[in-house]
Amino acid sequence: MPKNLQVLLASRPTGWVEESNFKIVESEIPKAGPGEIVIRNHWLSLDPYMRGRMSAAKSYAAPVEIGEVMTGGTVGEIVESQHPKFKPGTFVVGPLGWQLYAKSDGAGLTVVDAKAVPLSAYLGVCGMPGATAYIGLLEHCAPKPGETVLVSAATGAVGGVVGQLAKLAGCRAVGIAGGPKKCDYAVKELGFDACVDYKAGKLLDDLKAACPSGVDCYFENVGGEVLDNAFRVLNPFSRVALCGMISDYNAPEPYGVKMLRALLVNRVKLQGFIVFDRPDLYQRAVARLVRWVAEGKIRYHETVADGLRNAPKAFIGMLKGQNLGKQLVKLV
Amino acid sequence: MPKNLQVLLASRPTGWVEESNFKIVESEIPKAGPGEIVIRNHWLSLDPYMRGRMSAAKSYAAPVEIGEVMTGGTVGEIVESQHPKFKPGTFVVGPLGWQLYAKSDGAGLTVVDAKAVPLSAYLGVCGMPGATAYIGLLEHCAPKPGETVLVSAATGAVGGVVGQLAKLAGCRAVGIAGGPKKCDYAVKELGFDACVDYKAGKLLDDLKAACPSGVDCYFENVGGEVLDNAFRVLNPFSRVALCGMISDYNAPEPYGVKMLRALLVNRVKLQGFIVFDRPDLYQRAVARLVRWVAEGKIRYHETVADGLRNAPKAFIGMLKGQNLGKQLVKLV
Repeated sequence: MPKNLQVLLASRPTGWVEESNFKIVESEIPKAGPGEIVIRNHWLSLDPYMRGRMSAAKSYAAPVEIGEVMTGGTVGEIVESQHPKFKPGTFVVGPLGWQLYAKSDGAGLTVVDAKAVPLSAYLGVCGMPGATAYIGLLEHCAPKPGETVLVSAATGAVGGVVGQLAKLAGCRAVGIAGGPKKCDYAVKELGFDACVDYKAGKLLDDLKAACPSGVDCYFENVGGEVLDNAFRVLNPFSRVALCGMISDYNAPEPYGVKMLRALLVNRVKLQGFIVFDRPDLYQRAVARLVRWVAEGKIRYHETVADGLRNAPKAFIGMLKGQNLGKQLVKLV
Repeated sequence: MPKNLQVLLASRPTGWVEESNFKIVESEIPKAGPGEIVIRNHWLSLDPYMRGRMSAAKSYAAPVEIGEVMTGGTVGEIVESQHPKFKPGTFVVGPLGWQLYAKSDGAGLTVVDAKAVPLSAYLGVCGMPGATAYIGLLEHCAPKPGETVLVSAATGAVGGVVGQLAKLAGCRAVGIAGGPKKCDYAVKELGFDACVDYKAGKLLDDLKAACPSGVDCYFENVGGEVLDNAFRVLNPFSRVALCGMISDYNAPEPYGVKMLRALLVNRVKLQGFIVFDRPDLYQRAVARLVRWVAEGKIRYHETVADGLRNAPKAFIGMLKGQNLGKQLVKLV
């Protein structure tokens, strides 16, 4: 008889996450009570924000408690329903956590069309990361044709969409990524105009060369030294969408940003944002991304770990930048 | 026969400005050619931005060249005119520099009403600093009644107006200033609800106590450690107007800001700004400030140095925070 499998938070990391921070347990597959459904998850999304949830520190969402199932987005099939709005055989995306089966009252679940795009895309390019790119770039940076858009973590699930949306908006798209393989991918596969390898050791010079007219929109996923250098190439009246600071998440002490004065001198608008603050834009963003992906106008890449037991290792790898594009765990 | 007196930039400072960076020279009083006027300056304004002009580093305005008259705002009387629009006996405010007499074609000069408010007010509360406070707070922070407004350099020419505008807008106004004398002045004379002394050595605790509901609007004049601590008390969806970073201006190495992540977690909007970017708002701001000052709704304090020869010393004192309110030099 099949069992459920769950990944729990076993302890809070100090510095880098380790596999010992997680505990994998077997449990019974849940049964749906009145008004409930049971979902068999097909795909689990691994995202940088999860690092924040592992800490007890104050953030925009409550932390995962020790012994709780790790938080995470999934897409899966409804296998049992006592809920009038959800039918078995339907696919839903939602925050069902690091587990094979989940019980839900439907809160936070969205039915998706499994034929429009591949199911896994709803966790990446057509899901939360894609909507993050859409809202951060188009709403907060508001790029104009001919402007230069710079994005860090350019081959990540968010950054790859940012660059392609920048191209659709008539901009020069410049990425920052780690290593020649990722940079090649950004330019050759995703269509970036240029991509700077921050590991090459001359970030500022390379940024200046890649952005000869400076930077009008900067979409920040990384923080730290990358941000400090990017601030040096900002144009007057440029806009910064502050989406993530992954380089700080594992650092015991945050990096000290020296170039904040560039925001004053250039009269920059910087906006910190979380995709879920804009439910008014989320559905529109997803609908447009589904269409663009279906039409082949937006491309994406996935790095897939096989099976839930490999999720902790894949998560750590993603935090270290070992993935290319969206990091997923295949559960079925 | 009277002579003109001018303060020139003699050398660029490294770190703190010194009196030897200036050179005081006598020269002939200029004569007006066709389309020109000659102004006798009554008051010279001393402002933190001037430190930036003394450096060769890229900023939002070109540096003063070695041997040039120091840049600065003045208010004075037209003593000679060959310009159809300007009559002798009229008072004008404008960027006429550190000198007793100036020649001008009228560019950048605004005629002021010497009877509405004291002449010197056009360099402070009813001039550039006041308009800076107005635009930064009301336009970029957009405070709502009941919110908490925090402002650093609270007893400076800008900060003092920010706090009083916050009160007019129905907000709790909290200042940050150096020393008990300035803090007393902010609360007792300017009407701030509280003022935190950053020199008391427990800035974060004091900020938390003074802002029990957190901070919704932060008007930043100082930068450095003050900013890093203020970032820790920001509320979700708060707004930061980045107006100045005076603590960095004299530092050989900029301070490394560690709490940038607070802008992400709290989805903060930070806007760097310069008052002159918004000419559409400048005149409106000045008109309202003149009215409020005339009605006694906005109060101000001036620190006055006597005579142009004392301008370098007064400027250095202002950079070190020795002034209370607007720092002026009386020239007549």
